[in-house]
Amino acid sequence: MKRVCLSLSQYRNYSAPAERSIPAAKQKYVPTTGTYPKGFLAGSAHAGVKASNTKYDDVALIISEKPCPATAIFTRNLFKAAPVTVSRDLLEQRRSEGFRGVVVNSGCANAVTGIEGRQNAQAMSTAADACSGAAAECVPQTIVMSTGVIGQQLPIDKITNAIPKAYAALGSNHQHWMNAAQAICTTDTFPKLISRTFTLPSHPQTTYSIAGMTKGAGMIHPNMATLLAIVCTDAAIHPDSMQTILREAANTTFNSISVDGDTSTNDTVAFFANAAATPEGVQPLAYPEMYSKNGRLKKKDLRPAPSTDPDHIAFQAALTDLMRDLAKLIVRDGEGATKFVTIRVRSDKNIMVAKRAAVSIATSSLVKTALYGKDANWGRILCAIGYAPMLMDSPEIPMRSNPIGFEPGNTSVSFLPTDGSEELRLLVRGEPEKVDEARAKQILEAEDLEILVNLDDRPGRMGDEDQREAVFWTCDFSHEYVTINGDYRT
Amino acid sequence: MKRVCLSLSQYRNYSAPAERSIPAAKQKYVPTTGTYPKGFLAGSAHAGVKASNTKYDDVALIISEKPCPATAIFTRNLFKAAPVTVSRDLLEQRRSEGFRGVVVNSGCANAVTGIEGRQNAQAMSTAADACSGAAAECVPQTIVMSTGVIGQQLPIDKITNAIPKAYAALGSNHQHWMNAAQAICTTDTFPKLISRTFTLPSHPQTTYSIAGMTKGAGMIHPNMATLLAIVCTDAAIHPDSMQTILREAANTTFNSISVDGDTSTNDTVAFFANAAATPEGVQPLAYPEMYSKNGRLKKKDLRPAPSTDPDHIAFQAALTDLMRDLAKLIVRDGEGATKFVTIRVRSDKNIMVAKRAAVSIATSSLVKTALYGKDANWGRILCAIGYAPMLMDSPEIPMRSNPIGFEPGNTSVSFLPTDGSEELRLLVRGEPEKVDEARAKQILEAEDLEILVNLDDRPGRMGDEDQREAVFWTCDFSHEYVTINGDYRT
Repeated sequence: MKRVCLSLSQYRNYSAPAERSIPAAKQKYVPTTGTYPKGFLAGSAHAGVKASNTKYDDVALIISEKPCPATAIFTRNLFKAAPVTVSRDLLEQRRSEGFRGVVVNSGCANAVTGIEGRQNAQAMSTAADACSGAAAECVPQTIVMSTGVIGQQLPIDKITNAIPKAYAALGSNHQHWMNAAQAICTTDTFPKLISRTFTLPSHPQTTYSIAGMTKGAGMIHPNMATLLAIVCTDAAIHPDSMQTILREAANTTFNSISVDGDTSTNDTVAFFANAAATPEGVQPLAYPEMYSKNGRLKKKDLRPAPSTDPDHIAFQAALTDLMRDLAKLIVRDGEGATKFVTIRVRSDKNIMVAKRAAVSIATSSLVKTALYGKDANWGRILCAIGYAPMLMDSPEIPMRSNPIGFEPGNTSVSFLPTDGSEELRLLVRGEPEKVDEARAKQILEAEDLEILVNLDDRPGRMGDEDQREAVFWTCDFSHEYVTINGDYRT
Repeated sequence: MKRVCLSLSQYRNYSAPAERSIPAAKQKYVPTTGTYPKGFLAGSAHAGVKASNTKYDDVALIISEKPCPATAIFTRNLFKAAPVTVSRDLLEQRRSEGFRGVVVNSGCANAVTGIEGRQNAQAMSTAADACSGAAAECVPQTIVMSTGVIGQQLPIDKITNAIPKAYAALGSNHQHWMNAAQAICTTDTFPKLISRTFTLPSHPQTTYSIAGMTKGAGMIHPNMATLLAIVCTDAAIHPDSMQTILREAANTTFNSISVDGDTSTNDTVAFFANAAATPEGVQPLAYPEMYSKNGRLKKKDLRPAPSTDPDHIAFQAALTDLMRDLAKLIVRDGEGATKFVTIRVRSDKNIMVAKRAAVSIATSSLVKTALYGKDANWGRILCAIGYAPMLMDSPEIPMRSNPIGFEPGNTSVSFLPTDGSEELRLLVRGEPEKVDEARAKQILEAEDLEILVNLDDRPGRMGDEDQREAVFWTCDFSHEYVTINGDYRT
């Protein structure tokens, strides 16, 4: 095979880079200030988890000064890393209450590491607890995350030595948070940190804050694209409602992105709410239907009826918006990506149908390479819709059946430039348009692009108000992606 | 974006090439002789479906001298091309009986072409019938296939003019079959044609033949990787059993390959059995359990109990072997492929679990780029297994549940060199091996490689005789794939 040598303007490093400078094109995503939730502290330290990293911080700590409710959602991959199983168990044992925070290391995923890996993950938790003077209780109070190489044990002593240093470096200003956001990175080309303020309608004079950091879409051979995120707020949320609120937000954010379709062994999104800004007398946010008279949870329902509480609705929006913006940053940093693509699918039927079609488009190699080639290839988009699970009939169902009453003749596909200029129709109700190639080329030159699909563009439809819409974000598939992921192991 | 220019030793043409020479490395797959089933004729002609093709035959005809049973399996994509819906309807109307053959054009897929497309597909069928002097019956007797550009109408007059020329060129020797196999190609780098003889145990003095041709894995912008296959035999099969026999064979062959995971709008495998070699008194092969006393089909069961008839078993094996070898040729011709990878997954549970894991590995961008990079990356293989549908729990099932009782600690992964040398264990019962890097490098230098996964490598297991095994074939993911599929539309 003839090896091809590519010289690329941005060479992505697979180990701690000599220079951690942020590419010029990405600097606009990195904030220089922030407004951080009260009662949380952030910090980092250098452990040198990877032997080649002699310089950069690779242990991060986010701490709540007072124990608080916490929850997390984890990868569904069957091979769950040790930090995932340890954290999951802690959350169950503590029923989402009384957490101190989270300790994270980069450089090693602590995945497929057996009993020793599990003990090491527990040791990280315990070391963090010891710093905050937590009583030596049965159940630790610190969640654990790791990202990096699979199949290697943590150099646990280095990490447990670094944790007190991270603790000593804790602080509440922007630089502290930025240090932590940087320390969790692997091959991200920029740290991903967002902070905002918000208010709740029932007492709008109180200013709350919410902050989040994430890392992902960076691939180190032989690692997965591990997605880690930590979100903190100083609002008050009932521990029993934390999981539902987080899942609701994750559905349309972290679970609506794809770089290359692989779900790692380590994915974790953790969420802390410490009530530090909550005035006296304000109740923690909760789903009221879930509570019996004595105030305890009636039943754990992952899909309760939507809340009618204006405070809850406002908080859900603040959390979802933050997580959405963090998730989009991951796509912006997709390996080798040259395009940021929003896929919007509308359906009369239900949101799952729309989402399945969106996922199928977003994970199609043919669509993604076409985008890289700036090709207005609606045929591939259509093809991807047509084989989406739950749309395409299975072998057990006779070919004429059509489980959701899909009508190819009602499918429309457009490109929407994100500069507000005119939509480019590619397929209108099943009929191909004569596409203005120059216009297509123009639209595809831009970094940002939106693909709009209507699965139920019925004649006589007056608008789309009654449709369900799924939004998904992805990037293109380039030569650089292959280079990065096909590289020899060093 | 900086455009990268690659000079590659094999430039794949997206239109009819100036030279149709077969690459040296692929010549071993192209037979110079063959043994073709009696009573079938093959031929081709030039229509010039693509304006740029002024030279090469692009219409193929496979005809049975006597009308015979036929069946086909089609793409499950919701956007079915006109030739697919027309052929499907013909097969239903004729109940798989009385077919003359198949007419194929390359250069245009006749997909997303509305009513005109459907009429054109019917016109192709009618034109072929007219040549064979078929009475102007209500129901045509010739199946139709197309492959090529999506969203454009066929230049139908050119095609209907070429069909009589193809008919006049029909013949039964190797060159005729090869001409047809060549005429259906799009961006394949070599024609794919296999022929064999076989016998049936109940009358082994009779020599039967079976021949098949296929095309696929060639991508023309903006086309899909359309898979077309035509299989013909001079054995006798009962029309009501044709579909079941074909599906059974397709399961472990054409439905067990992936180049890039996309299922096109045009995929079709057609099968004809004309009994031309069947001696007097020999009954057509059938699934006996399916027939009531009057000889008609009791019920259409796509998954009947396995046959106990030795003739049926022998034929099923001959068909499956042929289709498997054709399917592997498609993978051999995968765009930009440098590796031919066999994925073998064993499971105690059931074949679907094993197959889902195999598909997941075979369609993972991370695994495929690692293979291109010659990287013994078991971590990515494991990850792909871990998120396979039906193995990975869904959001509706609580995280601790495990629908199939999957035990990560019982998973083993090895690389098997195909030269018969020693297996390289990467993961043994959930524990990573210390991998001999030099040996890994050596194994990954070869073009052919086998990945062996055991999902139930329980301690104390003596062998694997009682396990289910799914076998899947795929290729790697290279820079050339991106180049081919990211190219500007011309």
